[in-house]
Amino acid sequence: MAARCHLTPVLRGLARRSTIGLRRQAVIRQSISQPVRNLSQSRLLLFQRTNAVLKDEFTSEKYPDIQRDTRFVQITPEHVSYFKSVLGSESAVIDGVTSEGAADDIEPFNTDWMRKYRGHCKLVLKPGTTEEVSKILKYCNDNMLAVVPQGGNTGLVGGSVPVFDEIVINMSRMNQIIEFDEVSGILVAEAGCILEVADQFLASKGYIFPLDLGAKGSCHIGGNLATNAGGLRLLRYGSLHGTTLGIEAVLADGTIVDDLCKLRKNNTGYDLKQLFIGAEGTIGIITKVSIQCPQRSAAQNVALFGIESYEKAQLAFREAKGQLSEILSAFELMDQGSQALVRQVTKNNHPLEGEYPFYCLVETSGSNAEHDSEKLQTFLEDVMDKGIVADGTLAENETQIRSLWSWREGITEALGHLGGVYKYDVSIPLKELYQLVEDIRARVDAAGLLGDTDEYPVRAVVGYGHMGDANLHLNVSTRRFDERVEKLLEPFIYEWIAERQGSISAEHGLGVMKKKYIGYSRNPTMVGLMKNIKKTFDPNGILNPYKYL
Amino acid sequence: MAARCHLTPVLRGLARRSTIGLRRQAVIRQSISQPVRNLSQSRLLLFQRTNAVLKDEFTSEKYPDIQRDTRFVQITPEHVSYFKSVLGSESAVIDGVTSEGAADDIEPFNTDWMRKYRGHCKLVLKPGTTEEVSKILKYCNDNMLAVVPQGGNTGLVGGSVPVFDEIVINMSRMNQIIEFDEVSGILVAEAGCILEVADQFLASKGYIFPLDLGAKGSCHIGGNLATNAGGLRLLRYGSLHGTTLGIEAVLADGTIVDDLCKLRKNNTGYDLKQLFIGAEGTIGIITKVSIQCPQRSAAQNVALFGIESYEKAQLAFREAKGQLSEILSAFELMDQGSQALVRQVTKNNHPLEGEYPFYCLVETSGSNAEHDSEKLQTFLEDVMDKGIVADGTLAENETQIRSLWSWREGITEALGHLGGVYKYDVSIPLKELYQLVEDIRARVDAAGLLGDTDEYPVRAVVGYGHMGDANLHLNVSTRRFDERVEKLLEPFIYEWIAERQGSISAEHGLGVMKKKYIGYSRNPTMVGLMKNIKKTFDPNGILNPYKYL
Repeated sequence: MAARCHLTPVLRGLARRSTIGLRRQAVIRQSISQPVRNLSQSRLLLFQRTNAVLKDEFTSEKYPDIQRDTRFVQITPEHVSYFKSVLGSESAVIDGVTSEGAADDIEPFNTDWMRKYRGHCKLVLKPGTTEEVSKILKYCNDNMLAVVPQGGNTGLVGGSVPVFDEIVINMSRMNQIIEFDEVSGILVAEAGCILEVADQFLASKGYIFPLDLGAKGSCHIGGNLATNAGGLRLLRYGSLHGTTLGIEAVLADGTIVDDLCKLRKNNTGYDLKQLFIGAEGTIGIITKVSIQCPQRSAAQNVALFGIESYEKAQLAFREAKGQLSEILSAFELMDQGSQALVRQVTKNNHPLEGEYPFYCLVETSGSNAEHDSEKLQTFLEDVMDKGIVADGTLAENETQIRSLWSWREGITEALGHLGGVYKYDVSIPLKELYQLVEDIRARVDAAGLLGDTDEYPVRAVVGYGHMGDANLHLNVSTRRFDERVEKLLEPFIYEWIAERQGSISAEHGLGVMKKKYIGYSRNPTMVGLMKNIKKTFDPNGILNPYKYL
Repeated sequence: MAARCHLTPVLRGLARRSTIGLRRQAVIRQSISQPVRNLSQSRLLLFQRTNAVLKDEFTSEKYPDIQRDTRFVQITPEHVSYFKSVLGSESAVIDGVTSEGAADDIEPFNTDWMRKYRGHCKLVLKPGTTEEVSKILKYCNDNMLAVVPQGGNTGLVGGSVPVFDEIVINMSRMNQIIEFDEVSGILVAEAGCILEVADQFLASKGYIFPLDLGAKGSCHIGGNLATNAGGLRLLRYGSLHGTTLGIEAVLADGTIVDDLCKLRKNNTGYDLKQLFIGAEGTIGIITKVSIQCPQRSAAQNVALFGIESYEKAQLAFREAKGQLSEILSAFELMDQGSQALVRQVTKNNHPLEGEYPFYCLVETSGSNAEHDSEKLQTFLEDVMDKGIVADGTLAENETQIRSLWSWREGITEALGHLGGVYKYDVSIPLKELYQLVEDIRARVDAAGLLGDTDEYPVRAVVGYGHMGDANLHLNVSTRRFDERVEKLLEPFIYEWIAERQGSISAEHGLGVMKKKYIGYSRNPTMVGLMKNIKKTFDPNGILNPYKYL
């Protein structure tokens, strides 16, 4: 007895909300009391709540095991003079070494946007050219001064702020688009170019940046490469390892590596640029980027399904890949618990009437709206006829599209609104992706820590994420800090993932946070080879120390 | 006055030909007198003609500058005994060291399929497991025995055969598909699995290997990765750097590197597998591959255009990307000269009536035949209305699709049929892609070497290739060897490409052939870093010596 597909408007209570400038996250954000000026601020509010206990704590206090490397020299006024002579402009050097008054100016460079990591840096350098980056690094390497390369500082693992007194090399002044070929779609830009700026430029040319993520208004494309950012378009456009054509980078000793290739094919030697993608600034500083950009899709459609089991969610994904094929641009999974939390916070009615253990959001992007709608409707009817999907609804306009997306993208904010959250961003082979959520929920429940009333420290264990990429966000929503919860979760979760050959960091990287856990996802042979690479490229270890490996 | 689009059948003289098992190259191949049993043989015939003068010449004679590295030990019967003890089965060792009679059996492993490169190897090992590869390499490294990793031996630059007495480690026994996840589309297979076998397996599951090339019936997927093969699907599915999820490889000292990740996202450390992709076996032997496979498209359409200038060909490409967008799967360029040669050899009528300076072949692949046809027809009418395309024709069935493709894929064979050919596989930024052909033609003509009659050594200078990837095949068709021609071409062509930041090897790699030319596409800093990588992974240099760097 297959349920019937209803293609009526989906808004109910969402429809009358006005939109704001930021796509997708608009609806939920408005339901939160504080005014929101931009995405980064929005996130900051969230995490201030979530991590209130950590506010203003130094990383060096939080991680007492990490000791300052005594090989590194303390910065002197003489060093500062040199940097001022190189960078010329006063605004390119924020000097807290010779000037006490600069502390407030330096604080934003010392602290990540979650205020979870905080360093003791006293000097921020903002080079304007590759040659300046080169001179800075050569001098630092010669004088054993440690540095932290910094892009938009939107990372989640503490990779872009200092731990001790490392010099911050902030790339924000190198923010120009250098060239764009309208025939090939190849964009060349400086590393400090903001992702959204690049994407808006490309939009005016009918192209799209092959990467999209929540922090697009702040993050730099150089930082995107350095952290191998994944985001919302990976299912469709693949990873940066495939789309990046070339980079220019500066090595620890100041050597400029010009690999700024603007060709799709170039089989002449080892593809060294790949090492810099995801290296988190530990082997060099990316200064320019050359990237292959796809055509921007004229049409976008979104559907939301209710599904009765994780097995059926997998079948729906398989069918979506088969039937929607080249126009499929997102396939997101949300469990019942995550949707209940969004409903609880927003007080909105869910677009689907019944309750289902799982929900899937399917997005298509293509060049012909009519064709795409037809494919998506046919697909929806087919999966409902086959009993794979219990209920479903199709968005009919841009407002409805944003509303459906809000039930996926509002989860993070809803969770943050409710209290502290333990968050795990992991990859797990698709078959067992959701099993981790069930196992953790059972484990917390068995320990008597999960319940609906205040006596239980854990409110909910929920899962959602980029199903198309086998990327799960496991979230444990708590009412208060309780050491018993933490002990239940770690290292159990890392071990669980290691047993299934998953990844303890799907897209966020290692930074300070996961440095010591790399062994759960990489064997000693691999880690040994990585250390050789680090030593080859940065023998003095001045680049982003105390992190990554 | 835009020409009218005619959508009538395109075969004329091609229509009645029966098809043979091999796709796309069928029609032209039948017009050549010798019977053809399979693709490799077909190519062999072609190149035997083309390179008749080189037949049976040893690489060491052809490249007298290359000297045997005296650090490498000569193979002794004792070494052979060890390998026999490791590999067990007699058929896994072809022993020309202790047995004179094995020379004929060894010859196919000593010689590439073009018979352009020939080594002096006396021992071929065919390991059946990763552990056997490991034991072999550890022993070779400990005893300073040089080796050549060998896949399907279909390379074009002499990378997969020995120069002197290197031991061939042939991967053909490690040819199993290990697992396939029908939901995620992730395939895991041994390196010696033949590409076509993998693709046929995937076809039965509704998937496709994200790589396709002429040698698919012989080449190994491990070799595809080792050479970063490009091929026909790159425009659509991107490079192997994006689609490969993991590898297992054995290093020179026998260390097994297990990076056989089956996840789309895994940001835990340097992405070392990327170094092995395109390394041509110089830093390790790939033993297993994990790769993300897309859904197989249900529908395929092909159109052929006549175009009046290279500028308009670029416009047509831009429009194809915009209008066909997600279904565009190939955009190939052929110049008038290349089509004239095919016509001359096959005696067939060209599908388009008039003559045009350029022809473009556009292929679409999608999930809905009706939608795709509509898009392609709309596109074709649009570009004709705009005067971008002067004439065009659409294939209406599989036979016609093959016929249109034959005018692109038959060029190589037609050229080979006519005599010796100087071939250059290069990448050039799209704007100047065809300028190289014009400059070379003018240069040869100005020297009085180009003409229609026998007194001129050069018959034609033609260009064609994967326009979608900015990958040009420049071909200089000659009547006989003439030193003056060679001197006109090199190093002029390499310098011309270097000035425009192109690549002297778009997809074929370096091997023996282009080892000494790497400097035209990579600066000394890059080459220096590459040499460091080589030294880190293979300090004794036993892996594929005399090649690559």
